[in-house]
Amino acid sequence: MHPRIRVGIAGYGNLGRGVELALSQQPDMELVAVFTRRDPTQLKLINADVPVYALSDAQHHKDQIDVLILCGGSKSDLPEQGPALAQWFNTVDSFDTHAAIPEYFAAMDAIARQAHTTAVIAIGWDPGLFSLNRMLGEAVLPVGETYTFWGKGLSQGHSDAVRRVEGVKAGVQYTLPVEDAMNRVRQGERPDLSTREKHRRECYVVLESGADEAQVRERIVTMPHYFADYDTTVHFISEDELRANHSAMPHGGFVIRSGQSGAGTDQVLEFSLTLNSNPEFTSSVLVAYARATYRLSQQRDVGAKTLYDIAPGLLSAKTPAELRAELL
Amino acid sequence: MHPRIRVGIAGYGNLGRGVELALSQQPDMELVAVFTRRDPTQLKLINADVPVYALSDAQHHKDQIDVLILCGGSKSDLPEQGPALAQWFNTVDSFDTHAAIPEYFAAMDAIARQAHTTAVIAIGWDPGLFSLNRMLGEAVLPVGETYTFWGKGLSQGHSDAVRRVEGVKAGVQYTLPVEDAMNRVRQGERPDLSTREKHRRECYVVLESGADEAQVRERIVTMPHYFADYDTTVHFISEDELRANHSAMPHGGFVIRSGQSGAGTDQVLEFSLTLNSNPEFTSSVLVAYARATYRLSQQRDVGAKTLYDIAPGLLSAKTPAELRAELL
Repeated sequence: MHPRIRVGIAGYGNLGRGVELALSQQPDMELVAVFTRRDPTQLKLINADVPVYALSDAQHHKDQIDVLILCGGSKSDLPEQGPALAQWFNTVDSFDTHAAIPEYFAAMDAIARQAHTTAVIAIGWDPGLFSLNRMLGEAVLPVGETYTFWGKGLSQGHSDAVRRVEGVKAGVQYTLPVEDAMNRVRQGERPDLSTREKHRRECYVVLESGADEAQVRERIVTMPHYFADYDTTVHFISEDELRANHSAMPHGGFVIRSGQSGAGTDQVLEFSLTLNSNPEFTSSVLVAYARATYRLSQQRDVGAKTLYDIAPGLLSAKTPAELRAELL
Repeated sequence: MHPRIRVGIAGYGNLGRGVELALSQQPDMELVAVFTRRDPTQLKLINADVPVYALSDAQHHKDQIDVLILCGGSKSDLPEQGPALAQWFNTVDSFDTHAAIPEYFAAMDAIARQAHTTAVIAIGWDPGLFSLNRMLGEAVLPVGETYTFWGKGLSQGHSDAVRRVEGVKAGVQYTLPVEDAMNRVRQGERPDLSTREKHRRECYVVLESGADEAQVRERIVTMPHYFADYDTTVHFISEDELRANHSAMPHGGFVIRSGQSGAGTDQVLEFSLTLNSNPEFTSSVLVAYARATYRLSQQRDVGAKTLYDIAPGLLSAKTPAELRAELL
């Protein structure tokens, strides 16, 4: 048997914990170290019996690690940690600020080429598997429209916005696709859809004692950027109900390509995800791409990569011959 | 502007015609020749004003063609034409006899490596985009089950079987997924499904004059291999109705991966196609992969390939930088 791919985790929040669990499902990979900015002696892993090191010491462990999975956030962690770590490690990350991807790619590519490492960026489901399907749909059916719908999903940013409203004690926000719009798209219609026509928002809110429902509702649904452009429903619930029914992190969505093949014939491709844990799924995608990252580095294919650059077979624990015989 | 990719078509049936139409939708590709086993002077193309040559003369035109799209059938055409043409051309084909793929791959790989050509095989939707999604689902969620459902779709082989039944003048057969089974899978149940539980069959039959409905129905629904293992419904219709409502070639289906991420959390991926013309869509996929075939050959990446070996970005007319900025 081949030695297993030695994987490190940089950053141990929801995503890092998900990576620890996802690695335990892969026969050919093993977690060998976790790096943290917190006090390493205080960090408790879920199951793994591996050393925890200070992130600032990471470079001293570079020879023990084939791929480092970067589990920091896109806003402030990755723009700094990515280039710093790519000079020592092959890396894979879930950088997800869509608009900043070209800039982040350029920074990672420059460092990785210089250091002869492989840096796979923007892995997950959006950006990630959704991006792959947007591209496939467009390449196969160049005449047509692509639609991305998100949900049902818990939105962290919108939940935070709800919780900042005066009179709100606690709460969460779900984004939902508008079924009617999805069905129009699925039936081959290619409508122009406004923001309001594509998604709606549902908030589950616990009031501060004495707060007024009508006022709080009004403050939420009229909030610019976050809610004003959507049909928003606000449900008032108890703290117990919030804890019991709204502590999971579901998400998902739909990428639909509605196109016409040569003779004007309607053809529809659809990819969808129904996720009961958004961060755990992102972790699972990261781990599969960590395998590909290792293989690319073994082929001396250095520099920054996105999932557009990576042959899908590299993600699988199976050999090319097994894939052809069993899954093609 | 770059010169366009020069494409040839070998075999001009439904698939070849679809390729002609699909090429006209791609800005960076052009059809330059069609090869046929029929009399080239008698072949009428849909729109293209390009020469038609005898397939037996193909090798004399190899310098005019960047990629040859093989549009013959998998049963008898491709096993012979594939290796014969891969010694002169970069090729892409829709070889779809699942069980024979390893053998066909080996034959194409040996020839293509010797001739320094690139031979992309088994392209379409199943094998093809469905195979890609089966692999992705398994790589990302290694703990779980993958389900493929087909339909609603016209099945050529089963329609032929219906038409051979005594008392049947004409007819078609549709394969349909069983909705209840799909919904169980979508909800995260991972059932063992029998053949009968996954698909049902519907036949639309025109009787010979004097034939007995009950007898014909019984002959169809009890036919071994084709219908006996399925719930089959037989509808008797007029010839006019058959012509008016059953002359298209719709198909499609669903690949669903129902898995569990690390903490035992249910996660579901689904890919589906709703095709109003099965051959036209296969042609569209072939054309996108013809672009990738050309690019691989430009990189001197020779030998046989499947879609598992091909970085998705190679399918797109967009540059890697455009893909990152616009679709990631």
